[in-house]
Amino acid sequence: MNPQVRIDRHGEVLSMTLDNQAAGNEITGAMFEAMLEALRAEKEKPKARVLRIRAEGEVFCLGRERAGKDEGTINAEITRLIALKRAVMDSPLISVAEVQGNAAGFGIGLAVVCDFTLVAEMATLSFPEMRKGLPPAAIMAYLGRYTLPKRIFPLILFGQDFTAAQAREMGLVTQLSTRASLKADADTLVMKILAMDAEGTRQCKAYFNAAQESSLDQNFSRATSLLTARTLQLQAGK
Amino acid sequence: MNPQVRIDRHGEVLSMTLDNQAAGNEITGAMFEAMLEALRAEKEKPKARVLRIRAEGEVFCLGRERAGKDEGTINAEITRLIALKRAVMDSPLISVAEVQGNAAGFGIGLAVVCDFTLVAEMATLSFPEMRKGLPPAAIMAYLGRYTLPKRIFPLILFGQDFTAAQAREMGLVTQLSTRASLKADADTLVMKILAMDAEGTRQCKAYFNAAQESSLDQNFSRATSLLTARTLQLQAGK
Amino acid sequence: MNPQVRIDRHGEVLSMTLDNQAAGNEITGAMFEAMLEALRAEKEKPKARVLRIRAEGEVFCLGRERAGKDEGTINAEITRLIALKRAVMDSPLISVAEVQGNAAGFGIGLAVVCDFTLVAEMATLSFPEMRKGLPPAAIMAYLGRYTLPKRIFPLILFGQDFTAAQAREMGLVTQLSTRASLKADADTLVMKILAMDAEGTRQCKAYFNAAQESSLDQNFSRATSLLTARTLQLQAGK
Repeated sequence: MNPQVRIDRHGEVLSMTLDNQAAGNEITGAMFEAMLEALRAEKEKPKARVLRIRAEGEVFCLGRERAGKDEGTINAEITRLIALKRAVMDSPLISVAEVQGNAAGFGIGLAVVCDFTLVAEMATLSFPEMRKGLPPAAIMAYLGRYTLPKRIFPLILFGQDFTAAQAREMGLVTQLSTRASLKADADTLVMKILAMDAEGTRQCKAYFNAAQESSLDQNFSRATSLLTARTLQLQAGK
Repeated sequence: MNPQVRIDRHGEVLSMTLDNQAAGNEITGAMFEAMLEALRAEKEKPKARVLRIRAEGEVFCLGRERAGKDEGTINAEITRLIALKRAVMDSPLISVAEVQGNAAGFGIGLAVVCDFTLVAEMATLSFPEMRKGLPPAAIMAYLGRYTLPKRIFPLILFGQDFTAAQAREMGLVTQLSTRASLKADADTLVMKILAMDAEGTRQCKAYFNAAQESSLDQNFSRATSLLTARTLQLQAGK
Repeated sequence: MNPQVRIDRHGEVLSMTLDNQAAGNEITGAMFEAMLEALRAEKEKPKARVLRIRAEGEVFCLGRERAGKDEGTINAEITRLIALKRAVMDSPLISVAEVQGNAAGFGIGLAVVCDFTLVAEMATLSFPEMRKGLPPAAIMAYLGRYTLPKRIFPLILFGQDFTAAQAREMGLVTQLSTRASLKADADTLVMKILAMDAEGTRQCKAYFNAAQESSLDQNFSRATSLLTARTLQLQAGK
């Protein structure tokens, strides 16, 4: 059990709570490993249906630890952070990010790849990497799927702060809350997800994400097989 | 002539009017066949330049008939509904959906694939399939082309109602009308389309749609041939 | 030196100022050649970091010269205008379009492919090609990357005027200015760009543009190599 990220289950909800407050809830190597391990275990033997990513303290997450000092260790760190994003995207669980405070760099990137991104309206967001001359490539990799280029490019190039409302308008955020109501809004959302059909929900997320990456012909072809198979399942009462 | 969908021509306008009011203008197998047949005939021997999809009664269209009971008949139904969407998308006719009332599932999906989607502002819209655990894959196949994922995913996953104004803001709808002015607004639009050059209009739609599916290199390469050929046609007075 | 487009350098800024006012700042063959040559020279031997595209007079640019009269010359003109757009897109320079007045056709197309598109709020914009029956394919080639189809298709099909604010809302424009403040706003932006790390800026633009054209897998894979290499560069103080 990693003390800087509490990973626990209540019923069908797997929660990951960042608690590395002294370092702005920065995600360390050990935290990455713990989160990846939990998602891997879920994928092999699914028990939960919802993944909730939260944080303790004032800020949500200001980035990730950069401990690598040579090509091998730097490359391993980057490979691992991308693996966590992919694991969230590809997880059969519906993911909910609960951004109660400021988020920057990897922190906001992780929140965006969740299926639902709830943000407290007072939070300040940024992709600050270019302030140090580093293009945030592991974020640009997918930002084009969520927003329009003229909206996002200046924020990336200059690493400037933006508000939760701007992020909502741009397409990076699902829903705004006040800081006081955020937890309750996330609770309500999680209840709504758990009230849906489990198998249908899994198929819906998987198809939605795959469709963003494929041609219309491929999507229609996959739709035909999915709808046929799923209709038969539902008629059989599954 | 199928009495549940009136298909008629006035000059260069092909109209399809749903009239299956007892069943919420649900599209039945016979209606699908009639609509597909009319689009096929137009493609082989083009006479019309505009396709207008309308409905009688209070609602526009609340879905499609689900009569299939085994793999073969279910698969055939799905193949046919996708064939109708593709036929509208690929038709040389400019298509105008005139959504005078509520639309759900296949109904709103059909309206979205039209080149122009006019919706009465009081209409309630939804993708209700997930209420029964069925992922609306034949709609998700193309929704990512029209809107941003954080906007649309919650509406799909929960099958919840949304307004015409929300649909406009998201990118699913071209233009809102009052219910009283919708028909006149559609008439005006159709007149504007018919006032455009016929051959240029066909080429414009075909290129626009193909460009959504192709790389920048492919698009520029096709632009070079299209613009060269079309400029020569226009200089020759065609 | 082409008198209809002034190309000059001040420090790290390469400026191209359209000055063909008698013809609505239409871009002629000689202007295309001069602009292409300057971008080619920069690519081979980079000196500047910012490309600024401006215009003298009331309008920004109402299109491009159409002098071709047969297949060969028409094709060469189209190939050349596409080459200029690609050269701007692919340039290592960060490009800023300063649209002080009306822009149409190639004029607005050129402004959109710049990394930053600043437009005076009183400017009237249009893609007027379809008024003469010519589908603006060299613009549709990339418009789908910047905006949503239901927003843009009517403007293309009918060639109708739209405002700078509409263009901003649609995603074609980065930022609005008053006509009086446009130059100062562009100056400020250029200063901000020049204050960024030069190598990081180049890599950021190149990766951002490439990511729009590639799959998530390709993007993550390229992100791993870029971030590893760039982190090592920064640690070495480059």
